[in-house]
Amino acid sequence: MAGTPVTVIGLGMMGRALATAFMNAGHPTTVFNRTPGRAEALAEAGASVAPTALAAVEAAPLVIICVRDYDAVRELLAPAETALAGRLLVNLTSGASDEARAMAAWAAERGAEYLDGAIMMTPPGIGAPETVILYGGPPSLFEAHEKTLAVLGGGTTLISSDAGLPSLYDVALLGIMWSTFNGFMHAAALMGTEKIAATDFVPMATDWLKGVASFLTAYAHQIDEDAHAAEDATLETQVPPVRHLIHESRMRGIDATMAEYTEKLLTEAIGRGHALDSYARIIDHFRAPAA
Amino acid sequence: MAGTPVTVIGLGMMGRALATAFMNAGHPTTVFNRTPGRAEALAEAGASVAPTALAAVEAAPLVIICVRDYDAVRELLAPAETALAGRLLVNLTSGASDEARAMAAWAAERGAEYLDGAIMMTPPGIGAPETVILYGGPPSLFEAHEKTLAVLGGGTTLISSDAGLPSLYDVALLGIMWSTFNGFMHAAALMGTEKIAATDFVPMATDWLKGVASFLTAYAHQIDEDAHAAEDATLETQVPPVRHLIHESRMRGIDATMAEYTEKLLTEAIGRGHALDSYARIIDHFRAPAA
Repeated sequence: MAGTPVTVIGLGMMGRALATAFMNAGHPTTVFNRTPGRAEALAEAGASVAPTALAAVEAAPLVIICVRDYDAVRELLAPAETALAGRLLVNLTSGASDEARAMAAWAAERGAEYLDGAIMMTPPGIGAPETVILYGGPPSLFEAHEKTLAVLGGGTTLISSDAGLPSLYDVALLGIMWSTFNGFMHAAALMGTEKIAATDFVPMATDWLKGVASFLTAYAHQIDEDAHAAEDATLETQVPPVRHLIHESRMRGIDATMAEYTEKLLTEAIGRGHALDSYARIIDHFRAPAA
Repeated sequence: MAGTPVTVIGLGMMGRALATAFMNAGHPTTVFNRTPGRAEALAEAGASVAPTALAAVEAAPLVIICVRDYDAVRELLAPAETALAGRLLVNLTSGASDEARAMAAWAAERGAEYLDGAIMMTPPGIGAPETVILYGGPPSLFEAHEKTLAVLGGGTTLISSDAGLPSLYDVALLGIMWSTFNGFMHAAALMGTEKIAATDFVPMATDWLKGVASFLTAYAHQIDEDAHAAEDATLETQVPPVRHLIHESRMRGIDATMAEYTEKLLTEAIGRGHALDSYARIIDHFRAPAA
């Protein structure tokens, strides 16, 4: 039995993965890309290739778009604006929350229903049960299409009725990822100066990360309760080891920027009288005046 | 049946936890602290309190020291130097690798056997089966005392015959921890601007970290093989999202230093011709000339 017809606009690595997942799940799938030539394999697998963006939008009640940025979304859809009315536009393009909110308003002005989504996975993971895609938009709209959207990833979740929030979660989670990656690269480089292979070090590092993650849960409670009493390591006791890390890095010719940043966060918080607090107190540095 | 007599010098939170673990395991335990008054609870629990460092060293064949820094180790042991000959000195003080190597030489000059250790846990975790303590020193020496040392943590491991390496592992792992903590604080602050509680966000963040950890294993292989072809996200595709994170942070009044650092790492690597490589290529930035 055929599923809802869908259109996928934008056939980069991610767009092609999205279209493939829909086809694999039995959805009649129309595809479109601004620069041609990207649709060939999809066409062979049974996708309809639309000649224009307008034809692509007209081909299905559910239009998925995933392109380079929000400006590209607007440019691509410009010739198809009149056809958007009454359809659901699902925008999986990466962006910031203000752009996503502006796009939701843009879609509403054209009579389209709108969900914004953030794909927390690389293209090879599209369609997997554990793949998380975060959506923002009207809950009733999400519920009506949840089953279709879940074809792209089992971890499909509505996080807010605010179309801007998936972008915020997206960048916040990526920020954690890059910080951890950078910390690992720094550590692997330190190990490398002693000819210790990264593959020999990584099991210890990943075990260690499990412990680090368990501290985050405790810190989250402290952050929410604004009560940061250290049950374990105080800020004060973390100054000597971070200075050892700085010394160790410089001695071995390795960039110590991240350790210097941590030292600054620690000494700032201690200077504000928080020497005996836990690391959760560092939130004060980042916390902005209430938005 | 009584275990090997042990001496614990330095009775900060960590020293007290170490002494308690030895006592709980049935080791006759002597304790000493430079400033008095820290030994009372331990004495009540059955520890012998040595009046001087010399008496403390003379009380046991196995002397554990855990104080503020390596200078404090030297100062504390100065009046007890003659008694060190023929004993095993286990130094669990935090420091850098050059300090640990110098201390190993210092101990050898005094006829003492020496192990340097790094405790990868806070005091409340001492004695737990999962607590990791990394040692460096002669393997035969470690093997002879492994059972006694394992009383402090089930994850007791000799990582090298080089007494300097536990310190290197220590700071490298802590660096990963601080980077991840800072990334989480940044993310939690972003969430906070939308009144999303850290406790609501943390399950998503910790699930996400599991995925991040799995990438580290793949990257470690790429680092060791010096082959960084992206099987998932290229460096190029990570520039727009990191710029969204910078934009999102600035717009919400939150420090974007870490995201700016990531952007710099990405653009540098792309500038060196690695746009299509994986994030593992970032190791080049940190990798020092062979030590």
